Amino acid sequence: MPDPPSGYEAEADDQRWMRRALEEAAVAGELGEVPVGAVIVRAGELLAAGHNLTHTLGDPTAHAEAVAIRRAAQASGHWRLLGCTLYVTLEPCAMCAGAIVLSRMPRLVLARLIRKPACVARWPIWCAIPS
Amino acid sequence: MPDPPSGYEAEADDQRWMRRALEEAAVAGELGEVPVGAVIVRAGELLAAGHNLTHTLGDPTAHAEAVAIRRAAQASGHWRLLGCTLYVTLEPCAMCAGAIVLSRMPRLVLARLIRKPACVARWPIWCAIPS
Repeated sequence: MPDPPSGYEAEADDQRWMRRALEEAAVAGELGEVPVGAVIVRAGELLAAGHNLTHTLGDPTAHAEAVAIRRAAQASGHWRLLGCTLYVTLEPCAMCAGAIVLSRMPRLVLARLIRKPACVARWPIWCAIPS
Repeated sequence: MPDPPSGYEAEADDQRWMRRALEEAAVAGELGEVPVGAVIVRAGELLAAGHNLTHTLGDPTAHAEAVAIRRAAQASGHWRLLGCTLYVTLEPCAMCAGAIVLSRMPRLVLARLIRKPACVARWPIWCAIPS
């Protein structure tokens, strides 16, 4: 994984939005889902939120990030989520990392990495996908 | 990409279902979408079909495979698509390859590979994701 930008410290806004994402994760946990939450923010405003709904909806693609991306695209009226930041409580899986790239989201903030091989830890590979 | 199974030849059923997937691709093309189509078959019966709807729905996750997977899960009443085959007219992108793995789909038939680096051509990596 590339180093964070020089001098980077988690800013108050990032911490605030990650707390909101953690609230979404808690809702997923209450539903018996894997407790992952995500929020998408543009210009300091909440655009969409989501949490895992795989079992609830019976949809293998209903991960927190994918749910939030679909809602954000609907809310913004365009599938390109330019200028947005995605806050997610856990490192995205292969599907969600792909969805993030496809949505053209320029910024991603994670609460934690997962230990098994995943995608974002190989970010240079994923950046090679044409945007 | 691993070699096909020894002695493999495209069977008549595979060719028939791929023709159905190509019909879906044509529908996407008529809509101005990237012309990709997919069908999901279980026990010789069509479970779901889909085509690219990214622009039509304003949803960056609405690729043919993801649309078909969501519909198949809804039609079958479960997010695990065990015993199913996915026919898709073009090699899946990162997001869709991840979705295929997540859906536990055991068999994938492609009409053609894409030239730029994608996922299925690196299948051994993707098989490493726990099922």
